[in-house]
Order: sequence, then structure tokens, then C-alpha cells
Amino acid sequence: MRHITLLTDFGTTEGEHTVLKGVIWRILPGASIADLSHSISPQSILEGALVLERTAHFFPEETVHIVVIDPGVGTKRRPIAAQFGDQFFVGPDNGVCTTMLERAERLGLPVEIVHLDKPEYWLEDVTSIFHGRDIFAPSGGHLAAGVPLSDLGTPITDVIRIKKPEATIASDRIQGEVMHIDSYGNLICNIRREQIQKLGQVKVKFKNVELGEMVDTFGDKAEGEICPIYSPMYYLMIAETNGSAQKHLNAQRGDKVEVYKA
Amino acid sequence: MRHITLLTDFGTTEGEHTVLKGVIWRILPGASIADLSHSISPQSILEGALVLERTAHFFPEETVHIVVIDPGVGTKRRPIAAQFGDQFFVGPDNGVCTTMLERAERLGLPVEIVHLDKPEYWLEDVTSIFHGRDIFAPSGGHLAAGVPLSDLGTPITDVIRIKKPEATIASDRIQGEVMHIDSYGNLICNIRREQIQKLGQVKVKFKNVELGEMVDTFGDKAEGEICPIYSPMYYLMIAETNGSAQKHLNAQRGDKVEVYKA
Amino acid sequence: MRHITLLTDFGTTEGEHTVLKGVIWRILPGASIADLSHSISPQSILEGALVLERTAHFFPEETVHIVVIDPGVGTKRRPIAAQFGDQFFVGPDNGVCTTMLERAERLGLPVEIVHLDKPEYWLEDVTSIFHGRDIFAPSGGHLAAGVPLSDLGTPITDVIRIKKPEATIASDRIQGEVMHIDSYGNLICNIRREQIQKLGQVKVKFKNVELGEMVDTFGDKAEGEICPIYSPMYYLMIAETNGSAQKHLNAQRGDKVEVYKA
Repeated sequence: MRHITLLTDFGTTEGEHTVLKGVIWRILPGASIADLSHSISPQSILEGALVLERTAHFFPEETVHIVVIDPGVGTKRRPIAAQFGDQFFVGPDNGVCTTMLERAERLGLPVEIVHLDKPEYWLEDVTSIFHGRDIFAPSGGHLAAGVPLSDLGTPITDVIRIKKPEATIASDRIQGEVMHIDSYGNLICNIRREQIQKLGQVKVKFKNVELGEMVDTFGDKAEGEICPIYSPMYYLMIAETNGSAQKHLNAQRGDKVEVYKA
Repeated sequence: MRHITLLTDFGTTEGEHTVLKGVIWRILPGASIADLSHSISPQSILEGALVLERTAHFFPEETVHIVVIDPGVGTKRRPIAAQFGDQFFVGPDNGVCTTMLERAERLGLPVEIVHLDKPEYWLEDVTSIFHGRDIFAPSGGHLAAGVPLSDLGTPITDVIRIKKPEATIASDRIQGEVMHIDSYGNLICNIRREQIQKLGQVKVKFKNVELGEMVDTFGDKAEGEICPIYSPMYYLMIAETNGSAQKHLNAQRGDKVEVYKA
Repeated sequence: MRHITLLTDFGTTEGEHTVLKGVIWRILPGASIADLSHSISPQSILEGALVLERTAHFFPEETVHIVVIDPGVGTKRRPIAAQFGDQFFVGPDNGVCTTMLERAERLGLPVEIVHLDKPEYWLEDVTSIFHGRDIFAPSGGHLAAGVPLSDLGTPITDVIRIKKPEATIASDRIQGEVMHIDSYGNLICNIRREQIQKLGQVKVKFKNVELGEMVDTFGDKAEGEICPIYSPMYYLMIAETNGSAQKHLNAQRGDKVEVYKA
């Protein structure tokens, strides 16, 4: 039996996120289902894609990640399911799977995508506004139960991709921005370790504030000091030792960050 | 092994909601337990009843729904367990089960209710203030393990029901109100699809604001426009395409809504 | 297969709390994992210790409690695992396990602690900032799979303990303070039932406000009145019937509380 995760923007007050579990358990009793997150900002496809990038590939082989961040529900946007490397995805064709797709492409792993167009794998009564419950959860349940991806729909290759903001790379510096602020107030920037390592010894600047060299651990700085460090996914992360860099620097998403040869 | 859900007003910070799982797992190791919601407004029986209405019957047959919204804990209010159609309920006799009971009655499904008065199915040490942990979780665990409902307590028929606000129905119009506002800011009204369909072609009014005809999907309106639409449970729902109707209309629970022949 | 719980200060937005489940399921497919809490105040070791005190021993024998409240991650603080009575603990050596350790000592239960120093039980790629994912989750997964504690690391006895604020006990009164405020606004004080019972009949004072005698249930007072009562863990708790004592009394952690012979 395959493992399942759920990623939505439903919040956890209403119970709708758990209806998905009920629908899945009707198909696959006792399935192991983890809540990846239900607190994505409403309709934020980029946030969802970043959560998938940080989490999906840590799950066991053939885990089914069901994603319901779906501002286009009931329009012509297609419901899809896909295999990206050793992980499965089920959700809307709106770009939220981009990070999983690009990881598979980068690592040369198999990619297979289908348009979910076989209503026999959905709930009988499909509303126009809750495809999470009516299409994605039952499709994901069948997939986790072992139904082949190719039975769930028709193969497609033209899925929608979202663009993440790209850093600008020169020989002596990289200019990027704050891509995400996590719940500790850490600033995750769109500059990756392998890009930084090509520059050799570097210093970091946040807007006009010099932050100095990168550190290896939070403990290299005193409490309350700013630490440029690598995030758990090896992005540049601007943190504060036992505090919030967001508050310290009054930062917001999109703020400019620069890494330059020291 | 039967599935279990938990619905409380505990919040998820303190760990008390998870103690319920510990108590259940001692009785039924490895039981599949879903968190329906722990974010019901403190002591709000109506909110809990509305979550059960939206979710319970989507779960597999014989799922045990343990509900701890219990402002009367330690008073004479009775602890009860019940079968409503193919679903089980365990919780306080304060009306929170009304929606499950009324659904079973409406569909002509079996109803069986017992007063939980057999302490051999509770924790040994029962406090006066945490019956969720001491009575409801262990009773629910035994029920999920297969103990017959009739072993857990003495049959009763006089459970407490709460009243939901009722719409006023005339030949050319239905007057109702906002019954609930969900986490997207959608306004769920106490007017059901089968009531509206009897009027034929209709328009919708929120307080004194004309909202026009009902739409089939969010995509029928541009971003930022108001959509009168059916909720996933087929109530009238006033939404905003990719936005919050609550903010747009400055709405609150109890605001008047009217559906009238166009 | 042993049960597992997770207790962190990660929040539930980012998905990092669920990565722990992915890592565990790779080692132990289908493991039953409960979220004790992910909403501990950032880096609050005391809050985490209090949650463990209220919850851990309600779980089945040999449950593995994985705790990631880890302000010292990447410094010399040791990763540890332990058996305290019939429960296991995995987490940082920073005092967060103090309540589990002291309970085992008070009840004369077995205690065994190891320094997690065997990288073969960790993820291959260990970052300096996310030991929850890289060390604690895989160690906990192996422990739940049945690996003996002694295989995971080297025995130690000198773990760090935190001090909870202690009440001052005289023959006719006990002076303590508000130790914790829960999500209902109940004030949990550092004065235990067995201490109070030695005084006989008592009254309670919050700062300079007389609160009267202790009550058995919330129902002994009218809605909106203050109830001095025992918490589910038998601490003195100052509550308001169907309301928030915190708001009523404008209380905060550390406020003085006195119990005295009536």
C-alpha cells in the first residue's frame, strides 16, 4: 500500500481537509496519510510548489502527493496525475507540480503525466467547486491502491510550469531576492549553494546592509546576530540565531539580496 | 478495525488533542485516526455540528467520530454514543450530533443512541474536567475495536438537539442568513439547493446589495467579482472569485440574504 | 511496531514537520505517527517539557516521542535517545526531556539514556541546521522498528535538566505562580494537588484578588465566574466557566498565586 500526503490551502478549521482522508479511506481502508500542509496562502501556487520541493522526495518510493491549491477549479484547467521520479503527484494543471517535474528532469528520472479524464475513478457526484474531494482524493486513493497511472487518464506532455524568480549571475557576484519567509522568520533566497560555491570566499548583502561571511551553524553567531547560512535545501538563508531575521531586518518577500566575492 | 476521527475545540498547541490518540492506541494499537478539526471556536456546538454535517458521511462505513466540544463537562449533561446510519458518534449530549441525527432521519437510516454509563470502558481515573480523555476517547476506542454499541451504555431516545437558523420560504422568495463563514471568506447561507430550485430562475440579494444570478463555477466571474454559487454541501454560498466575499461585502454571521424569482 | 509522536516548534505551514514522517516511513512503512504539537513557541524548551508531562505516558508502552525543539542545533549540544519508564524519547540534550525523566525517577521506573553517536542510523547527508530531519527522525524510526536503544549510541547519565519554577511551601500556605496559560485561557499554576491536600480546607488568591474555595467542576460556578479547580494533570488551575480566566484576570505567566488554609 502506497503512502499518501495532502497539501492544500484549506486551513484546518473547516474539516474539508479531512474529508479528503474519508474519501481515500473508503477506497483504501487504513491508508497512511500525512498532512504536508493545509496552511498555504489561499491560491498561492508558488508557495505550494516550494513546499513540494522541500518535502516530496523525502517520502518513501511511490508516495502519492495529492495537492489541492486550485484557484481555477471548475474552469478548463485540467486535473492531472503524474509520476516524477519515484514520487506520484495528483492535482490541478496549474504549475504547482513544477518543482517536482524540474527535479526529475534535472536528475534524469522518469516522467509520466496523464490528464485525469476517467470519471469511473471519481466520486459519483462531482461538484464544480470541490475537485479536491470529488476528483483528486479518489484518484489519489486509487493510485495508492495500485491502479496504474495509465488507467487514470490520457497521457499528456504539455503541463503548465510556473516560473520562480531567477538570480542574476555574474563572475564576481550573484543578485537574487527573498523567495520565501518561513515560520521562524528565516529568509530563504533564490540563490543555491552550487552557485555560491563557484565564487569561492563570499560575503552577503541584504538590501544595503552588509551581513558578512556565511557561517556553518547558528552557534557561530551570538544570540540575536544575523547568520547567512545554507537552508536545509541548500538555498542561501538569512537567519538570526534564536530569533527572527524577518523582524530584525524588516524584510519581505522580493527584497534584494547579493552574494559577492570577498 | 474501524476508522476514527476527532473533532474538538482544544486547538493544537497544548497536545491535549493528541492525548486522545494515545488513549485510543492503548486500546486499539495502530488505529487510523484523522483530525477532523481542533479549531472549533471554544464551546461552539453549532460550529461543530456544521463540520460533522459537511464531513462525517464521506468516511468509510462504521467510522467512529469522537467529538469533544463540551462546555458542560462535569455537570449532569450525559456522555453518549450513537449510530446514525452507517456512522458512529461519541461525545457529549449537548446537541453537537444534531446534524448527523437529522441526516439519518431524513434518509430513513437506523438510529441507535446509548447513555455511556459503563465505567469499565473508561480510564480508571476520571477527572471532572477532561471527559474527552477519560470517557470519550476510551469509549470510542472500544467501539472502533468492535465492542457493540449496546455494551457501552443504556439505550436512550431523548437526546438534545440544537436549532439551526431556518430560512423563511414564500412562493416567490426565500429569506435566510449567513450561517457560517469559512476560511476563504465564503459566506455559507441557510438556504439549500432543493429550496432554490423550486423557484425556477432566481437572483440573490445580500442585505441591500443585488448580486445577480447564481453561477455554476468561480470561472464564470472575473477575479474579484462576487459569485452566488452552491457550496460543496449544496447550500447557497456567496463567494468571490479568487478572493474573500467576507471582506468584499464586510459580512458577518447572521447577515440577511434573500433569493427571489428573477 | 511501536507508535511514534512528534513534538516541534516548526509550525505546520512549511511542511518541515511532515518531512519527519517521510523520513520515518522510509525506515518503517506505515508507522502510526501522531503530531503531539508543532506550535511550541520558537525554542521554548519549558513549553515542550510541559506538553510531554501532560501527554507522553498516556501513549501505549514503548511509544517513541521525537522532540525537535532545538535552539542549539549544530553546536556541541548532544543528540540523545532515552527510555523513561515504558516510553522512549529522542531529541536534543537541552532539558526538554526533564519532565519525562523526573516522572520515571519519582515512580522508580527504569531510565536508560544514550548519546546518539552512530551515524549509520542517520540520513546520509547531515546538515548543520536540521537535525530533526537528519538525525532525530531516522533514529526514532529505527527505534520504533525495534533497534535496541543501546545500538543507537553510547550510554550517558549526565543529561541536562531544566528547572521549573518551584512553589514555596509553609505550614499554612503555598506560594506559587502561573506556569502556563492554555489555549482556553486557563492558568496552570506550579502547585500540585498533593501539596494542597496537606493544608486541608483552602482558599485561593491570584495576585491580590480573592478567588474563594476550590470547586469540583466548572458547573459549580455560573458562566463567567472564576473557578479554582484541578487541571487534568492535577495542578491548581484558575479557569473561568465557559470563558477565559486569562482575559478576566488580565493574567500572564509568572503572576503570583497563593493557596492558604481557610
